[in-house]
Amino acid sequence: MSGPVTSLSGYPEWLPRERIAEQLVVERIRRVFELHGFTPIETRAVEPIEQLSRGGEIDKEVYLLRRLRAGSDDDAGLGLHYDLTVPFARYVGENAGRLDFPFRRYQIQKVWRGERPQEGRFREFLQADVDVVDRDALAAQYEVEIPLVIGEALGALPIPQVRILVNNRLLAEACYRQLGATDPVVVLRIVDKLAKIGPDAVERALVEEARLEPTAARLCLRLGEIRGAGVDERLHQLGFRGAEVDRGLEELLRVVDGVNAVRPGLVEADLSIARGLDYYTGTVYETVLTGHEDLGSVSSGGRYDSLAGDGKSRYPGVGMSIGVSRLLVRLFGAVTASRAVPTCVLVAVPSEEQRARSAAVAERLRARGIPVEVAPRAEKYGKQIRYADRRGIPFVWFPGEPDTVKDIRSGEQIPADAAVWEPPEHDRWPSLVGRLDGRGESDDRGSTT
Amino acid sequence: MSGPVTSLSGYPEWLPRERIAEQLVVERIRRVFELHGFTPIETRAVEPIEQLSRGGEIDKEVYLLRRLRAGSDDDAGLGLHYDLTVPFARYVGENAGRLDFPFRRYQIQKVWRGERPQEGRFREFLQADVDVVDRDALAAQYEVEIPLVIGEALGALPIPQVRILVNNRLLAEACYRQLGATDPVVVLRIVDKLAKIGPDAVERALVEEARLEPTAARLCLRLGEIRGAGVDERLHQLGFRGAEVDRGLEELLRVVDGVNAVRPGLVEADLSIARGLDYYTGTVYETVLTGHEDLGSVSSGGRYDSLAGDGKSRYPGVGMSIGVSRLLVRLFGAVTASRAVPTCVLVAVPSEEQRARSAAVAERLRARGIPVEVAPRAEKYGKQIRYADRRGIPFVWFPGEPDTVKDIRSGEQIPADAAVWEPPEHDRWPSLVGRLDGRGESDDRGSTT
Repeated sequence: MSGPVTSLSGYPEWLPRERIAEQLVVERIRRVFELHGFTPIETRAVEPIEQLSRGGEIDKEVYLLRRLRAGSDDDAGLGLHYDLTVPFARYVGENAGRLDFPFRRYQIQKVWRGERPQEGRFREFLQADVDVVDRDALAAQYEVEIPLVIGEALGALPIPQVRILVNNRLLAEACYRQLGATDPVVVLRIVDKLAKIGPDAVERALVEEARLEPTAARLCLRLGEIRGAGVDERLHQLGFRGAEVDRGLEELLRVVDGVNAVRPGLVEADLSIARGLDYYTGTVYETVLTGHEDLGSVSSGGRYDSLAGDGKSRYPGVGMSIGVSRLLVRLFGAVTASRAVPTCVLVAVPSEEQRARSAAVAERLRARGIPVEVAPRAEKYGKQIRYADRRGIPFVWFPGEPDTVKDIRSGEQIPADAAVWEPPEHDRWPSLVGRLDGRGESDDRGSTT
Repeated sequence: MSGPVTSLSGYPEWLPRERIAEQLVVERIRRVFELHGFTPIETRAVEPIEQLSRGGEIDKEVYLLRRLRAGSDDDAGLGLHYDLTVPFARYVGENAGRLDFPFRRYQIQKVWRGERPQEGRFREFLQADVDVVDRDALAAQYEVEIPLVIGEALGALPIPQVRILVNNRLLAEACYRQLGATDPVVVLRIVDKLAKIGPDAVERALVEEARLEPTAARLCLRLGEIRGAGVDERLHQLGFRGAEVDRGLEELLRVVDGVNAVRPGLVEADLSIARGLDYYTGTVYETVLTGHEDLGSVSSGGRYDSLAGDGKSRYPGVGMSIGVSRLLVRLFGAVTASRAVPTCVLVAVPSEEQRARSAAVAERLRARGIPVEVAPRAEKYGKQIRYADRRGIPFVWFPGEPDTVKDIRSGEQIPADAAVWEPPEHDRWPSLVGRLDGRGESDDRGSTT
């Protein structure tokens, strides 16, 4: 049993073993974020509806709250957050006077979206976000740092290599305007559906909804085919040029070249990347897992220059979000925790009269940081060993003269003293076992950058 | 600034330093739970409304969800959980065939209640629960183990000693029936409001709502005054007796004596403890922080014999829940984190041209598990040191010939090699500093048990 246990469509829950594995995955991500000096914050689950309608089309998916029995009405107009960027921007605006800038934060929380549930898409899911915001102006170096940190966090997990795809909205919008689009955001939203609805439907929508000429719509699709090296040349070949295009292109290449100078092949320019959320204003990122491209983006984000403000200042930011739940669903086919409980040692109970003695052994072991349970019943030792075995507890301790401890995997049993015995370090706590493979992963990525 | 920053009444948020302190508090609690072999689970935030109405009067406080724009209606009838016991019981019932019993789990999550906000009462707050459930029958030893684990978890925090107050619903209901109550649950709910509305209002409600005779209502209040040693004697003096009373009394004393045999003075019988939730069927617990009794219970729970089931079996359980948010609000007057960021070392940047060199130093330190940031701008060193100082970062690293590292607290600066230098272990990660005192805490607790 490795998939989620779901009695309510879109709301995954895990059995204990996978929940332990989830915690271990989150801890690895968190450790990388903290090693880079990102500080944790947590925001409330609810936001005023005005905040939640700042993401664009996503407001269709927002859940509002109402009280079961009407009473005071002061919760009216609150809804559950659908991402961690909007609440973070609100938090920065509210607390700007009490924060130090540039402010580097990470945030690992559940979010809620009323989407149609399918593989990798949930109504409640866990995100792990990392962002930098600064006051008034944000240095370009952070658009390079964020994908490096995300690459390192994902690299700490037992998964294939990732490739971060980068685009720039200034560039995309400059090109859309050259194609005659009056509202480039409408074009962006349509292009963002490419993977969902396919090129023919996108082309039709570009003509019918965005009012592009048929030739322009086709050029728009060709634009989205540009990826990898030689972006500038290929843009020029398609006839895109001018100051706005050049500025967007410069920003895009600065990110791609900056990241690849440190981690060659980690990022790649991809002009099909649009992102569905309205608040991005420059660089945008999506991330594919090599060999698991069908899963969709496992980490997305971008730069937002106008999301946070407090009336006096702007707080431009850049960040990316790891879709932890989406990753886990794929991961848990191949990876789990080494056991279903934290327990390293089960202390057997020879008879109910001697339970207090077993409890005292347990306490001595715990005092030295070893996770221990006492057997629930003074049954035959064979049954007590089976209790440990079913949960994957590696050691059973038998009080006696002297006490002995048995590794139930090897069967080896040795005399032991609860004041000094130590388990092997890798057995003390549960660990992640297994690795998701790349399904015929190829290493030719490097050649395209 | 140590209190929550709250732009929305009842929804506390923390500044980064307090958020780090919160994480450290949660980790200490979690570590104790795991040392005792409790396995983590996490349940979705929403439950069907039928589940949520099982707690009794609390259903007034339930938040229901609705979609901002009506679409598919398959989320109708879902609400946010108001505790972690009801979702846990539902999870056990659904997954009984895939779990091993007795099942020991902990769960640390947010819950939501539409209460009137006040100190220690929030609409969104963090709970840390620990429970044991078994199939068909639950051994009495767990009613002793749970308060011992909670006592140890709270004992791991920088707070005064706690006292866990214990009552038994069988005993209380047997007494209420002797007083002529037709529905003992109604009496329980009224008695539970004692601290909120005072004895006169409780007496009136017992007469008017629970239809007790005035003498019986007064006896009911006297019953609630019984606490500490000699419970049996004082019950008999008030005229309570019989098989049901004796059975409840036996259960109560078994818990009190069992816990105090291991941790003298940790628990105390207190017949005023009622608990507002309907699902408890035997032992109930509340916990007071010595010198901070005004805060209310910081950890509550009890035994529930009929909450979980899967049609074939019952799954009786016992558990307690630590009110983490409530504790933190009081704690943060006296306790915080040693710094506002995880960062231990800031690597200075001599000039923008040398940023890559500083980044390389940072990477070498991180590779050995030291949290590091690179200075945001190649400003004068004084400004770069102030960046570290404002955040509480203890060390600044200067690339040079040789590199040097400065402890900005002492001013000491020494030559250092990024491949081998280590910070003092207590400086590597942020830690909790300070301790909440007991405000004239006295040690006479032991004398009442």
